[in-house]
Formats: sequence, C-alpha cells, structure tokens
Amino acid sequence: MKVCFVGSSGHYHDVLTPLRLYHDLNIHVVGIAPGSTGESIDKLRKEIEDLGYKPKIYEDYKKMFDETNPDIAVINCFFGDLAKASIEALNRKIHVFTEKPAATNFEDLDLLKEAYLKSQCSFTAMFGIRYKPWFLTAYNYLKKGVVGEIRLLNAQKSYKLGQREPFYKQRKTYGGTIPWVGSHGVDWIRWFTGLNFISVYAAHSKKYNNNYGDLETSALCHFELENEIFASLSIDYYRPNNAPTHDDDRLRVVGTKGIIEIMHNKVYLINNEVPGIRELPLEQEKSIFLDFLSEIEKKGKCMVTAEDSFEVTRICLKALQSADKEKIIFL
Amino acid sequence: MKVCFVGSSGHYHDVLTPLRLYHDLNIHVVGIAPGSTGESIDKLRKEIEDLGYKPKIYEDYKKMFDETNPDIAVINCFFGDLAKASIEALNRKIHVFTEKPAATNFEDLDLLKEAYLKSQCSFTAMFGIRYKPWFLTAYNYLKKGVVGEIRLLNAQKSYKLGQREPFYKQRKTYGGTIPWVGSHGVDWIRWFTGLNFISVYAAHSKKYNNNYGDLETSALCHFELENEIFASLSIDYYRPNNAPTHDDDRLRVVGTKGIIEIMHNKVYLINNEVPGIRELPLEQEKSIFLDFLSEIEKKGKCMVTAEDSFEVTRICLKALQSADKEKIIFL
Repeated sequence: MKVCFVGSSGHYHDVLTPLRLYHDLNIHVVGIAPGSTGESIDKLRKEIEDLGYKPKIYEDYKKMFDETNPDIAVINCFFGDLAKASIEALNRKIHVFTEKPAATNFEDLDLLKEAYLKSQCSFTAMFGIRYKPWFLTAYNYLKKGVVGEIRLLNAQKSYKLGQREPFYKQRKTYGGTIPWVGSHGVDWIRWFTGLNFISVYAAHSKKYNNNYGDLETSALCHFELENEIFASLSIDYYRPNNAPTHDDDRLRVVGTKGIIEIMHNKVYLINNEVPGIRELPLEQEKSIFLDFLSEIEKKGKCMVTAEDSFEVTRICLKALQSADKEKIIFL
Repeated sequence: MKVCFVGSSGHYHDVLTPLRLYHDLNIHVVGIAPGSTGESIDKLRKEIEDLGYKPKIYEDYKKMFDETNPDIAVINCFFGDLAKASIEALNRKIHVFTEKPAATNFEDLDLLKEAYLKSQCSFTAMFGIRYKPWFLTAYNYLKKGVVGEIRLLNAQKSYKLGQREPFYKQRKTYGGTIPWVGSHGVDWIRWFTGLNFISVYAAHSKKYNNNYGDLETSALCHFELENEIFASLSIDYYRPNNAPTHDDDRLRVVGTKGIIEIMHNKVYLINNEVPGIRELPLEQEKSIFLDFLSEIEKKGKCMVTAEDSFEVTRICLKALQSADKEKIIFL
C-alpha cells in the first residue's frame, strides 16, 4: 500500500505512530509534498526518514499524486487548504485520510462531498480522539444502556495555546477555533447520541489571544438535537502551560437512568445499579489509521465514516456562522 | 429580634441551622403561617418547637405580620407566591429573607422592587450556596487575580428528582427549573465576574420527568456577558438516587492566567505560578442568615444584596422566556 503525505501541519502522528509500532503493515511512504504556500515539511520528512522510508520530495502535490500513484493520501496542510488537496486526491481515486475539519467553508465542503461520491474511495477525517481508551470505554458502556435515554451533554475542549505556526493567525488558513478545536466535541456528541442536530447558537472571542490575529481563544456552542436533547460545547485555548497535559477533554452525558463522564482521561459512571460513583475499567487504545486501513482492505467499516467527517464539518461551519452572525442557525 | 416564617417549602434550614448552632443570637420565632393555598407547615412547626420556641400558628400571614409585628419575615412558600408574601412584609417594614427566585414573573418582580425601595428594609434571597467553603474559597482566590481576566465560565446544577411536593408540577406554583435550580448558577456567574449580562439563549425540556407535569428536567443556558465573556449553565434533575450527594454543583472559571474549578465540594486551581493542579485549602463555611442578620444590626452589608437577588431573578426570568420562546433574549 503506497502512502503520500500532503503537508505536515496536523496530526500526521496518527499515521506515523502505528507505522512505528507495527512493522508488518505493508505500507510504503512514497512521497511528501507541502499542501500550502509557505508550509515546511522538514520535520515530517525527518520523522519519516527516521522510520526507514525514502520518500520522494515534491513541491507540487498534484505532480506527486500523478507520479507516485498512491493508494492513500494523508492530507494535513494548512486547514484552509485541506479540502482542495482532498479533492485532488479523490479525483485521482486515491483514498483520503485527512486532518479535520474536512473543509473550512460550505463551498469547499460541497465540492468535496461531490468528489468523494464520484470517487468511490474511502474518506476519513482525523477524529482520532474517539480511539482513546476513555472515549471507547464510555461509548461502549453507553451503548449497553447504562444511562438510559440521553437528555443532556456537556462537552469540553481546553488547549494550551503555546507557540503555533503563523497560519493560525488568519481565518482563511486556520478556519476558526470552532471547526479546528470544536469539531472533536461535535463529533463526540453526534457519535454518542447518533441523533440529528436541529439548531446551534454559538459565540466566540479572539480577545486576549496573545497576538494570534483571528484566532478565537474562547468559544461556546449550544446545540439542540432531536427529541429536546441539548448539548453544550465549551472551547478554550487558556489551559495554562503548567497543566499536566496539553488538553483537557471532557464529556458528560446525562441520561434518564444515569450519568457517564469522561474526565482526566478516566471514565466515571453513576446509575442506580451500583451505589456511588464508579470508575470504569478502560478499554485498550486503538488507532484510527489502522481502522481506516481495514476499511480500504475491505475488512470492515472505519468507525469514523466519510458521512461523519462531512456532517461534523457542516455542523461546525454552521456553528461558526452562528458565532460570526450572533444568530441561531437551524441545521 | 422577632422572626416569622411564611411557608415551609424552601430552604428554611438556612435559618434553623444557625439557630440550632448558636444560642446567643437573641432571635425569637414568634409566628408561623403557610404562604400558599394547601401548604402544610407541620414539619417546620415541629422543628421550630424542637428548638424550644413556641411560635403562634396562623392561617393568614398578613394577620401574623400585623399581630406579631416581626423584625424579619422568612418567606419560603410555593415559589409562585414568594413575591406576594415578600411585598406584604416589606409594606409593613419587615426585613425579608426569602427563598429564591425572588419572583416568578416580571410583574411581580417590578412590584417587589418597588415595595423594597419604599420600605428601606433589608432584602436577601437564599443564595446560601455562596457561603459553602468551596465557593468562598474559589471566590477569594479569584479576587486575588489567580486566573487573570475571566473569559469563560461553565456552571452546572445537577439534582436528584426524588419525591417532590405537588406544587412542583405546575409552572404557576413552581416557576420553572431555570429560576428555581438555575438561579444559583446565574448568581455564581454574576458574583464571580461582577459583570453585566448582555444576552441569553436557553432551552429546557420536561420530557422524561416522571410525571412531574410542567417541571423541566433538563435545561441549558448560554449567556453572553460584557467584554465577550461567555457562560454556560447546565441544569438537570437526573442525578441518580445512588449518587453520594443530592446535588452536583460545579463551576469552572477560565481566565487568561489560569483556571479555577469547583467540583465535588473541592476547589482546584491551575495557573502558571505552581506546576500541576492544586487543590486549595478550604475556607470555613459561613451562614447566609447570620450575614443577613449582621446587615440588619448595621454591622455590615450582606454578601447577597437586594440588588443581587432582584437582578439574578430578572436574568433567570429572561432565560426562561428565551427557553419558552426559543429566541435569543437581550438583557
């Protein structure tokens, strides 16, 4: 299986980590190219060469696609260019494993969906957090019915701002904090409930952003789902440098029979079967890239489907629109 | 100091607990009366008599006010009748310590404010949670600047539904979950930030409410405050009976220099002064009623002012309106 990388501005470790761990994957990294003007791929190149691959280095990813004829394109350039690169890959019948959000505007998203449908390829956005032990565990328990009917969800994404590439400073290249950071939260809510979103009201602010231009450092989304289920999503870049981890992902799911909660990389359940708060034993971590490979090898469907990738993107773009226009947006 | 009780449907323990603990308060409970049609005061009567008081029992609280001429009226009847009873007391120059929300509709709130202003009495609603060690601790640290400028707040109220009086089943007598449960959260957000609220978007649902009529079992509020500060407030009645406490109050305050959080009756701080997450040493619990007494005795201002009590009520009624009408409401 031949793999090309377009860009190195996202979660390419979702691919490199399994390549490092498993030597029997039959994966050949054949090419690397930047996906955006001014994007450096030096660090990615070094990491890939350290793994023993000798990929050809391209300036133009279209030329790379044409010359190397890969099975899979890993797209992770500046976020504003992701959709364009994905479309170029899909038009050449190359399976796409892309950074999220799949697109940063509605026009690109429509073109992307169209290219995907024509291609009959696999397409997955990097919602790799689903494969963390705490998310897999909470999801699997939830599906057993431990909280009854879901009524309310509270999701949280909190990141350290740290030092970021200059492309984060412009909406055009960055895409906005709600799609970039918030899309994980939207994905969790959609995945856990399996329900349609009806409306969103959102707000965001770029104040106190340490001179990061357009980058919004705080955001809050209020979703309504089918059956009067509500979900909050709190997003911030204010996690202090001193905090023990980069992120503080949380999800609280309130149901008619119990409450399950992901916090500090653990899972807690309260329901009426056992007294008190239970910390649940964690599942093993899985790999989104290996799951994606399984789909390509016809061994099963990837847990993050193309439809998930597109629909989460669409919801995030609507939320962004809500925050920009200060209006309730119906989905 | 002569005290009368109107009703027994709220947090009258905020008064009885300090009476039980401190015998030198010079407080005389001189009368008890129901405040709402059909309200039983038997349990309150027994508790007060057990404390050694021999209050006169009235059917009509206006008659009680006129005959006993109390200094303080403790108002905690059905929530829809609170404002009416408070007004009757204020009109007689009686200081009012009332269950929250101070009123359950805008007309009553206006009449109440008017009566208060004319009376020159003290007026405090029972936002007693402020006096819990974890809230006092978080507030005091916050005021030292440990999180810098506040940018985002996430508040949570989660209660056990349990068995409740029939008056909870009707909006007219209950007032709604956002004012009843949510008013604490609104109070915390307002107290911690000291800022004005600009808008609210809220939603609530009475589905799966165990036949409690109009009672909303889930609600979500999204507030915008001055300076692009956002606050979420998640409210539910789904805390399982097996949970270790009745309520699960939480508040997370995200600032430019740190994050402080109240959870599980503890306080956690992360900022760049000390590595890792710090659990803060807790202040001693205080009593809202004793604080209210101090104000009457001209020893200082009660931390929960009349203005706080009215403004939190107003914001909650606007949030309720937002949820009922599914619209953004400007404050």
